[in-house]
Amino acid sequence: MKTVGVAVIGFGTVGSGVVRLLLEEGDRLAAATGCRLVLRHVCDVDLARPRDVQVPPGVLTDDIERAIGDPEVRIAVETVGGTTFAVDLMKRLLAAGKDVVTANKAALAERGPELFAAAREAHRSISFEASVAAGIPIIRAIRDGLVANRIREVIGILNGTCNYILTRMTSTGASYEEALREAQARGYAEADPHLDVSGEDARHKLAILGGLAFGTRVRLEDVYVEGIAGVDPQDITFGGRLGYVLKLLAIGRVIDGSLSLRVHPTFVPKSSPLATVAEAYNAVLVRGHAVGDTFYYGPGAGQMPTASSIVADLVDAALGRAGTTFESVAWLAGRSAAMPVKPIREVETRYYLRFDVLDEPGVLGSLAGILGRHRISVASVLQEESSDPASVPVVVTTHRAPEGSFVSAIEEVRRLPALVGRAVGIRMLEPGEEAAR
Amino acid sequence: MKTVGVAVIGFGTVGSGVVRLLLEEGDRLAAATGCRLVLRHVCDVDLARPRDVQVPPGVLTDDIERAIGDPEVRIAVETVGGTTFAVDLMKRLLAAGKDVVTANKAALAERGPELFAAAREAHRSISFEASVAAGIPIIRAIRDGLVANRIREVIGILNGTCNYILTRMTSTGASYEEALREAQARGYAEADPHLDVSGEDARHKLAILGGLAFGTRVRLEDVYVEGIAGVDPQDITFGGRLGYVLKLLAIGRVIDGSLSLRVHPTFVPKSSPLATVAEAYNAVLVRGHAVGDTFYYGPGAGQMPTASSIVADLVDAALGRAGTTFESVAWLAGRSAAMPVKPIREVETRYYLRFDVLDEPGVLGSLAGILGRHRISVASVLQEESSDPASVPVVVTTHRAPEGSFVSAIEEVRRLPALVGRAVGIRMLEPGEEAAR
Repeated sequence: MKTVGVAVIGFGTVGSGVVRLLLEEGDRLAAATGCRLVLRHVCDVDLARPRDVQVPPGVLTDDIERAIGDPEVRIAVETVGGTTFAVDLMKRLLAAGKDVVTANKAALAERGPELFAAAREAHRSISFEASVAAGIPIIRAIRDGLVANRIREVIGILNGTCNYILTRMTSTGASYEEALREAQARGYAEADPHLDVSGEDARHKLAILGGLAFGTRVRLEDVYVEGIAGVDPQDITFGGRLGYVLKLLAIGRVIDGSLSLRVHPTFVPKSSPLATVAEAYNAVLVRGHAVGDTFYYGPGAGQMPTASSIVADLVDAALGRAGTTFESVAWLAGRSAAMPVKPIREVETRYYLRFDVLDEPGVLGSLAGILGRHRISVASVLQEESSDPASVPVVVTTHRAPEGSFVSAIEEVRRLPALVGRAVGIRMLEPGEEAAR
Repeated sequence: MKTVGVAVIGFGTVGSGVVRLLLEEGDRLAAATGCRLVLRHVCDVDLARPRDVQVPPGVLTDDIERAIGDPEVRIAVETVGGTTFAVDLMKRLLAAGKDVVTANKAALAERGPELFAAAREAHRSISFEASVAAGIPIIRAIRDGLVANRIREVIGILNGTCNYILTRMTSTGASYEEALREAQARGYAEADPHLDVSGEDARHKLAILGGLAFGTRVRLEDVYVEGIAGVDPQDITFGGRLGYVLKLLAIGRVIDGSLSLRVHPTFVPKSSPLATVAEAYNAVLVRGHAVGDTFYYGPGAGQMPTASSIVADLVDAALGRAGTTFESVAWLAGRSAAMPVKPIREVETRYYLRFDVLDEPGVLGSLAGILGRHRISVASVLQEESSDPASVPVVVTTHRAPEGSFVSAIEEVRRLPALVGRAVGIRMLEPGEEAAR
């Protein structure tokens, strides 16, 4: 039987998961694929820390050169993370003739073209199924399974931490801060949650998915991002009454030949499959011109789901399919053209607006007048009798209008003397944007 | 650029969709994959019938030998259907050195091993993404994306016609016959709906998915099947009140080393993602030991979704990945061992039972006594005050027990003089069997 040497660099949570699968599933995988993956090195700077998996003697090392210099290592798994050392490491591994498998979305989103070029120069491949939505094989689905389609739209829930927080806020009415603490207590959020709650992590993933789905180079700075830190539970409640659920969505579209990529909190109609994705799960809705809507759902983070996708990539690389794919797919092979980018101000969307105003005559008229002057058409208004005339929330949903109109209108509302509290704007996924069911 | 000649055999609905994609998307596909698929022949016995796609002159033919004998044809698409002529045709195409792409689930389920052996002998491949769940790339997901997993369970809604009929019965209270007529009027059911409503089509698909997911040879006769023709709308209503939705499920499991494959109407908890799959959509839930639950949802039938998957397979074959896969994956390469099959009577499940009985003293006691004697434990009872003492429905849900116990208990109930109407049994998906959300 064919055998292929593997090195795992980085023996943290994900690295341990990969090592465990290689050791525990080695025989089954060899029987199932006709190829044995042999774990030759596991490298980490910290050898003392206890792990939940036993590595055979001689395999664990803090000397990365042993892996790089071993000609029997044909594939290396990078689980170090970050965009500097890890990128240099991947380049060295490629130059040393190894295929690379990684889950490093930050490195791919920020320095992907550079990494892909290094792989091409070395006639090696980089595979990264685990970089987006961890255990869901969404990269393969878009790249291979849906290749016949002009992909019109990709909409994802790509950050499990944010989805957990928003799910808790929705189900218990908790504040953002309470839900974040709960997520931290249950291991769904880091002590420093910035990368997740700022939307930055989802932005990295959308940059990768968008490049692949639309076959174009994506610059990270062209992906618009807003996080969930400012979300107020009362908007989740109002949205719920209107038939919507709040999600941090990553939305990619090609609009009139221009690329539009954005990550922001979004009201999703309850009838959409995206609305049913709860807790720390991830999901992606892909709209193709031939297939229509397909939807993928599963664990978007965690040791074993991530390791599951990394080992799938190892098998692909070992069988030689990864190399074929890397040479063929335009985006990986560096043959994709850049696309013009549609500025966020020009993107059309619907909005949910909440204005906390004085309960006095003429205020609703002023608000409506401002929206009208910015050519924003009102779809619904929700204002309830209030016990506190000093501050009454007025909730308005709108029809489609350009983002720029909303920005200008909200600025104008903020100058109204009657505005005593917040002026909140949350984008809405339109009915036509949800999956037909 | 690499060019690969393609023949499409069978110019019906699906064949026309494939031809359309090859003609309309040819340039984009060539750019995206680095390989041009050249349509050399489109073969059909009936050249006169109007189609919605124009074929270039000289390509359309009623002479299949032109395709088989053309050395420039490297890949052939079989859309003829059936298990006799189509199988012989595929064997001839393979022997002539062509890779084969097909959506023919009946041929694969009934004569798969024979076809795979013919492909191996010819050193060619057979690809069949479109044979299960049409546009959803579920074959790739299980075969490649989840390869690291011991797959514990596959649960699918694999027949769009049945799902459409059950959805209509659920939403409108229509009878089975009314819903079937509606499905026929809307093109979701054939004039002769037997293959779909009997569960046979889903059975074919489960035989394919089960073989792949569990890496074993599946004999079609080992897949238990019950269709939806006997379903009574009142059971859908009672189930709904208990928190369940009725679906035709295809369930594959490995239980203590034995294979259990079955297709039957099943009550699914409303909290399961499977419960949200409506109309003619398909979905598959895959439970892997490392990844956990992943869920795939999309159009399970139709011209362009099916063509989408066929063209994906064409690209795989053209790039050479299909050949690598076919040689490597144990199930395709004929290295899979058969597994013992668990007889349906030994499978444990929960049941929903409805007995239409006389409203008189002692009847409930008799029913409970029969269940108890068969060691079936009652989970809930629903009996409402009735205006018609001559026939009262008693609805019982049970805890887990072996199928055989239910068969015996229901037989005994049928001998009760108090049973004046039907004795209905419908299996229930257990809470532990639904996806964690």
